[in-house]
Amino acid sequence: MTNFYSFGLGVGSQNSQQQWLDVFYSAPLLSPSAELIDAVTSTVNYSGGNAAIEVDSQTMSKLADALNSAGATEQGQLASTLSNSDQPLVITLLATDDAPSSVPEGYLKLHLLSHRLVQPHGTNLTGLFGVLPNVAWTNQGAIDLAELPQRQLEARLKGELLTVDCVDKFPKMTNYVVPTGVRIAHTARVRLGAHIGEGTTIMHEGFVNFNAGTLGTSMIEGRISAGVVVGEGSDLGGGSSTMGTLSGGGNIVISVGKESLLGANSGIGIPLGDRCIVESGLYITAGTKVNLLADNGELVEEIKARDLAGQSDLLFRRNSLSGAVECLSNKSAIVLNEELHANN
Amino acid sequence: MTNFYSFGLGVGSQNSQQQWLDVFYSAPLLSPSAELIDAVTSTVNYSGGNAAIEVDSQTMSKLADALNSAGATEQGQLASTLSNSDQPLVITLLATDDAPSSVPEGYLKLHLLSHRLVQPHGTNLTGLFGVLPNVAWTNQGAIDLAELPQRQLEARLKGELLTVDCVDKFPKMTNYVVPTGVRIAHTARVRLGAHIGEGTTIMHEGFVNFNAGTLGTSMIEGRISAGVVVGEGSDLGGGSSTMGTLSGGGNIVISVGKESLLGANSGIGIPLGDRCIVESGLYITAGTKVNLLADNGELVEEIKARDLAGQSDLLFRRNSLSGAVECLSNKSAIVLNEELHANN
Amino acid sequence: MTNFYSFGLGVGSQNSQQQWLDVFYSAPLLSPSAELIDAVTSTVNYSGGNAAIEVDSQTMSKLADALNSAGATEQGQLASTLSNSDQPLVITLLATDDAPSSVPEGYLKLHLLSHRLVQPHGTNLTGLFGVLPNVAWTNQGAIDLAELPQRQLEARLKGELLTVDCVDKFPKMTNYVVPTGVRIAHTARVRLGAHIGEGTTIMHEGFVNFNAGTLGTSMIEGRISAGVVVGEGSDLGGGSSTMGTLSGGGNIVISVGKESLLGANSGIGIPLGDRCIVESGLYITAGTKVNLLADNGELVEEIKARDLAGQSDLLFRRNSLSGAVECLSNKSAIVLNEELHANN
Repeated sequence: MTNFYSFGLGVGSQNSQQQWLDVFYSAPLLSPSAELIDAVTSTVNYSGGNAAIEVDSQTMSKLADALNSAGATEQGQLASTLSNSDQPLVITLLATDDAPSSVPEGYLKLHLLSHRLVQPHGTNLTGLFGVLPNVAWTNQGAIDLAELPQRQLEARLKGELLTVDCVDKFPKMTNYVVPTGVRIAHTARVRLGAHIGEGTTIMHEGFVNFNAGTLGTSMIEGRISAGVVVGEGSDLGGGSSTMGTLSGGGNIVISVGKESLLGANSGIGIPLGDRCIVESGLYITAGTKVNLLADNGELVEEIKARDLAGQSDLLFRRNSLSGAVECLSNKSAIVLNEELHANN
Repeated sequence: MTNFYSFGLGVGSQNSQQQWLDVFYSAPLLSPSAELIDAVTSTVNYSGGNAAIEVDSQTMSKLADALNSAGATEQGQLASTLSNSDQPLVITLLATDDAPSSVPEGYLKLHLLSHRLVQPHGTNLTGLFGVLPNVAWTNQGAIDLAELPQRQLEARLKGELLTVDCVDKFPKMTNYVVPTGVRIAHTARVRLGAHIGEGTTIMHEGFVNFNAGTLGTSMIEGRISAGVVVGEGSDLGGGSSTMGTLSGGGNIVISVGKESLLGANSGIGIPLGDRCIVESGLYITAGTKVNLLADNGELVEEIKARDLAGQSDLLFRRNSLSGAVECLSNKSAIVLNEELHANN
Repeated sequence: MTNFYSFGLGVGSQNSQQQWLDVFYSAPLLSPSAELIDAVTSTVNYSGGNAAIEVDSQTMSKLADALNSAGATEQGQLASTLSNSDQPLVITLLATDDAPSSVPEGYLKLHLLSHRLVQPHGTNLTGLFGVLPNVAWTNQGAIDLAELPQRQLEARLKGELLTVDCVDKFPKMTNYVVPTGVRIAHTARVRLGAHIGEGTTIMHEGFVNFNAGTLGTSMIEGRISAGVVVGEGSDLGGGSSTMGTLSGGGNIVISVGKESLLGANSGIGIPLGDRCIVESGLYITAGTKVNLLADNGELVEEIKARDLAGQSDLLFRRNSLSGAVECLSNKSAIVLNEELHANN
């Protein structure tokens, strides 16, 4: 029983039909040891493959013993703690990185991303939208949408407040994990499944979708769409936009390399390399025609932005007198970088 | 007693002077039946016109009997449920669609919109700002602003948290109703009185004011200002802007037709027809001068954007080499549509 | 003991090592009277300078008596109220406006700003980032980040919800004070230390950083970055951007004068004077070259935007046919103002 993909002990919430609404994994594992998996599969009823096995407290308690005996004391301790709960418990075993086929499986994969155990695009999320239920995330926990109106009326009758903060398939990340070394000024804008690098600050205007995020230190005041990855040392200015790939299908995957900068209210529809700058207020789409300029300012050629995709040391700006979009190489870029960072 | 405009049984909150702060109607009615209204008016002290009648549990219980006898069993059941509450109860009767004259009347009209019983501009909201109080919406419910500082201090002394999430005349919609078939990733940005069509997703960057919204399936990542209506199949890209009409008075009412698209960080100050596109990053105001181009790319005429208001099958873009804003007819538009949808 | 800078009686929260996470001052004072300070310093153990003195209930009760005897009855009443709490209490004395050296001192200064006792740039905040801890702001209060994972697991085991709404050094202002005469539609976007003028409405898309804000009546639907001040009667359109100075160092301080307007999705990297307008969608940075036009539309000169910094009665727009950024003087500006206000 070797080379398992992932393992997680979870506690979650269910609707009144005992269907999962969400699962919380406090310590998910990537590549769990063979000993750990052996301890689990000899305790619970596991028939191979990927499985989310709902268990009662007693089984979780037995699992704690088995894990401790196998030397997996951290997970053993967690199982022991979980066994004291009367909430729905689940043991999720992912033998392989196949597409998620249940809520506990989907949530485990989202946790892998937000715990930084895998990077964006590093786990198979095919069909995730179909697997996850649309849930009302409230101050009284996750509520099935079909059960919400009754709950809202009941709360009102008692003079209680039931606030519905989010109606979505994806909850906010920080209710599940806050990775080390980050600030996230307004957590409602970071979905579970985001990958927030150590040293990243997400300001109030920042946004990070699932399967997307930063790899290291970044100041994010713009929007990181699904699938977009931002490299070490790159900043997204306030209100800046990165085009996502969710509804496109087969399109260019947008990314930002290292030490690049999107100015405030700018946007990109092409991937950027390292040390690139897009001037504040300028939106570059793949089809944007660009005047490529030499260091001396002379026109080299007219080129489509998509042909500059992924290249490093570029500065994009709109000439404020001619109205033409221009691209310069890095010398100018470095100078402007200092200036634009003033917006952080 | 026929042709009544609207009816609602409500439970709400009041300040310490028994003034209404808000009212929650779980099942508001448009065009209630004559039988239902007869049952109500023969039970409570109603002197005609539009009225919000505050009642005690006992009266609400009697009303339940009367409604059930009249065959209005859904409302009868609701009245029966409400009669078990010790919270402030109200019976709101709107004989006509006159301007709202009280908090319960204003809230009933906002509920009509969010329950999709009327479309934006479909109910008379004249003077609504003057009728609604500014309220602190907190995790302990609605609090009168004059009473807030004392409440905040008291909470702190007890080590309790009192969070003030919104200070506004309009609360967030989802605390009152979540219409069917929607996702709203960050509910703080959708006001009660918004009309969210079946099939609409409002992403975190989306916003919908009251008396505004979508009519059907839409992906909304931009801002739908007060009074703006977005038609079936149209999308608003991230950070896109629609000009509102609240403070203008007598100005053009902005709308978006069917299957149109505002690109990310774009904006409009004119209404769009069907199958229109505004390129990412481009803001079209009514006064924007536009080069109208033929299918072969030749200039037809120079025209103000306001003269293209409401027309269909248009693509607006800024020529990235000449800097001129251009408008093309639909053939090009259809091609670009596919591309821009990648930002959803 | 005269000319004291500031004084505050606070109640706050601490982590499990009795380190401050935050402090709430319900009635901070600027320039407290000599009599008040004498009453304080004769009651508590104060050795001069700026000090945050943690006290128990008994001492707070004695202080109440001393304050009342000194005629400082408002603070005396507050001290009396605080003496009934079992939460951590603090007496913060700022003899001078030196850089804050502790959490209670930093929070007192942020309160001075948000209580409108000082204007932005009106108090010394040097080194504030180093003084304030990064905190998880949750529905169960402020939680030390090191203690958060355990708390999250415990909550889940009990079926409780622990929502982490903000991970930041700065909490949201309205949990500490809601100044009079404001609406703030979405409070998560206004940090403690913001200065919100009487008559200001911050819409959902508005944002105000600390040490920044408005001085009077304003409609704010854009972002007021750290250090930026917006004058009486000026409006920021939806999604508009002001460049901050936090990470710049030595750069231009951005401000907006009176009765000016940033259009939707516009932005500025220069300070504006009075009665200025920046057209929707246009971003003006310090380096933007601008065609300065006379009233008759003729070109006066080509000029960098930084050379127009702080000047009044200017209208910035991008010529939608030539693509050139233009600046006109005020006559046109006044006309456009009416039009653009339609976006409020």
